[in-house]
Amino acid sequence: MHRVDARLSVLLFAVSITPMTINGTAQTLPVRTIPARTLPTPATVSPEMQKLIAPAWDGSTAAVSKTTEQWKALIKQTDEPEAKHAESLATQLHVSVKEETIAGVRVYRVKPETIPAENRNRLLVHVHGGGYVYFGGMAATGEGILMAHYAQTEVLSIDYRMPPDFPFPAAVEDSVAVWNEVIKQHTPRNVALFGTSAGGGLTLAVVIRIKELGLPLPGALMVGTPWSDLTKTGDTYYTNEFVDNVLGSLDGSLEAAAKLYAGTHDRKEPLISPIYGDLSGFPPTILLSGTRDLFLSNTVRVHQKLLQSGVHADLLVFEGQSHAQYLEHDAPECAIALGEVAQFFGRNLDR
Amino acid sequence: MHRVDARLSVLLFAVSITPMTINGTAQTLPVRTIPARTLPTPATVSPEMQKLIAPAWDGSTAAVSKTTEQWKALIKQTDEPEAKHAESLATQLHVSVKEETIAGVRVYRVKPETIPAENRNRLLVHVHGGGYVYFGGMAATGEGILMAHYAQTEVLSIDYRMPPDFPFPAAVEDSVAVWNEVIKQHTPRNVALFGTSAGGGLTLAVVIRIKELGLPLPGALMVGTPWSDLTKTGDTYYTNEFVDNVLGSLDGSLEAAAKLYAGTHDRKEPLISPIYGDLSGFPPTILLSGTRDLFLSNTVRVHQKLLQSGVHADLLVFEGQSHAQYLEHDAPECAIALGEVAQFFGRNLDR
Repeated sequence: MHRVDARLSVLLFAVSITPMTINGTAQTLPVRTIPARTLPTPATVSPEMQKLIAPAWDGSTAAVSKTTEQWKALIKQTDEPEAKHAESLATQLHVSVKEETIAGVRVYRVKPETIPAENRNRLLVHVHGGGYVYFGGMAATGEGILMAHYAQTEVLSIDYRMPPDFPFPAAVEDSVAVWNEVIKQHTPRNVALFGTSAGGGLTLAVVIRIKELGLPLPGALMVGTPWSDLTKTGDTYYTNEFVDNVLGSLDGSLEAAAKLYAGTHDRKEPLISPIYGDLSGFPPTILLSGTRDLFLSNTVRVHQKLLQSGVHADLLVFEGQSHAQYLEHDAPECAIALGEVAQFFGRNLDR
Repeated sequence: MHRVDARLSVLLFAVSITPMTINGTAQTLPVRTIPARTLPTPATVSPEMQKLIAPAWDGSTAAVSKTTEQWKALIKQTDEPEAKHAESLATQLHVSVKEETIAGVRVYRVKPETIPAENRNRLLVHVHGGGYVYFGGMAATGEGILMAHYAQTEVLSIDYRMPPDFPFPAAVEDSVAVWNEVIKQHTPRNVALFGTSAGGGLTLAVVIRIKELGLPLPGALMVGTPWSDLTKTGDTYYTNEFVDNVLGSLDGSLEAAAKLYAGTHDRKEPLISPIYGDLSGFPPTILLSGTRDLFLSNTVRVHQKLLQSGVHADLLVFEGQSHAQYLEHDAPECAIALGEVAQFFGRNLDR
């Protein structure tokens, strides 16, 4: 019955709402009101995921204004428990983590206990999430440890420089500098690049940049719920606002992180918001999101742009999950998600 | 910053909400409240799609109770304009539509003006949407006409019997009967099966049934925003309730259609709600949905179940779209969506 309803709606719309200015520079688009609703915890996910989905978002949409010292204190407070979590994950999964320096950038070499023959010449280069502000140091490694475990492949996790001292483009420059060294030791098509959230956006930005520089590209990408647009552009910034219990809203601390990272740069620059970049010629890419994810539009917009650019791109959307909840190792959905990524790397990387 | 927030939320949850009964038969899961919100029309879709997205849902969640005669009157009233729309679409796209009977079932043979050599031995078998109640007769052919045009391939659209006179399993039986004749004339791996909404669910149900019967399977499937679960199970039945401006809610006319179709059968039977069926051994499948789609969970649950069953399955989720809006030919997103489906058939069907 969808067509009839839709056409009827268009008709009602045409007579009841002032015409839109949709092609001018100042767009005046209609706004709809959605009533308050109750959301049950879905019965269609694991009990462990239900525990993660059930709580309401506990953040605030109030504007954030901090001094440099206040930022540093907040970052320290955020990163310390995350670093401890990463250490305990490494112990639990028998994954080793060793700090190194490559091209002057701190990195962590993350190795699973056993590496099957087909993965011995492969490497997965990781850029962490955390809004381009958080998860420096050992906190950078959590996702890398999980991936080393599930993909049974060595991971190199880049601890790129971050604000307040080092805003954009430090994160891109550090990652590109490491890439430039990695390809001296490895066949580029044996190497994947991956990350989630800010790390997903950074994965895209780094590939745009190494294309510009004429460097060889990775063999495959995982782009997890990428922060591909740092402006409030994209439908699920609104439809999943407050529905997502991890990010809640762009307004508040996420917006503050975007401003701190962009610094004096326009947030629509392609190396900051890669949805505005040229994605043609990209390597095979797998994208991940969830039905409640504030970044679902950030994810599907990139997926469609990749497909329309002729790139092989696979999309996974997980039932009921808010932002990046597929990285929650306590739920069996984590093994499913990263298992699918591992298979994608297995199919698309050379050996 | 996602992990810290999530863990903090879990902690808060643990102390503030009564423990869930999640493994018992009677599940008591927590419910969250989402405040009333405003949704702007997304700037990230075409002006034509904006016109479709902007209006509020104009339906009702009130329970529907009708006599057989009232159902028939409503169906006639719904199908007549849809049939006219299909006829005008056929004229506009230079697609011919010819009525035939196969295995006692009325079908429409839908042919584009030109068919390239690689598609001459191919056939796309279509089962229409319309909640298993609407879009009988010529109204069945709209999606088939679009697909014939965009895939430049002959389409056979099945006008399966429907309630109130012919509830489940008539739709499945008619479609299987036609399939049994089609495979006498065509190499099965040259033939795709496709549909949207109820047609997406029916596509899955028909393949489950022909597997049970030991008949050869199609070479590929398109499963568009499938009604894979006719009970109110799945997260986006709630998160996208009223956000989707085509279906609005399962409550009301959609629920009435589900009851009318299922008749005396349990709505969780796999041939009615195919998410509960065995999807192993399925042919390569492409699935379509939108970020506002009430059936986004119906779609991604099937996608994940196919992947976990070892089936090649591709997912497309379109920015800002409610249920099945990719079939709205006035918007350029229709050509993009069906173009991607055509490419998928091109890659996966034999010739």
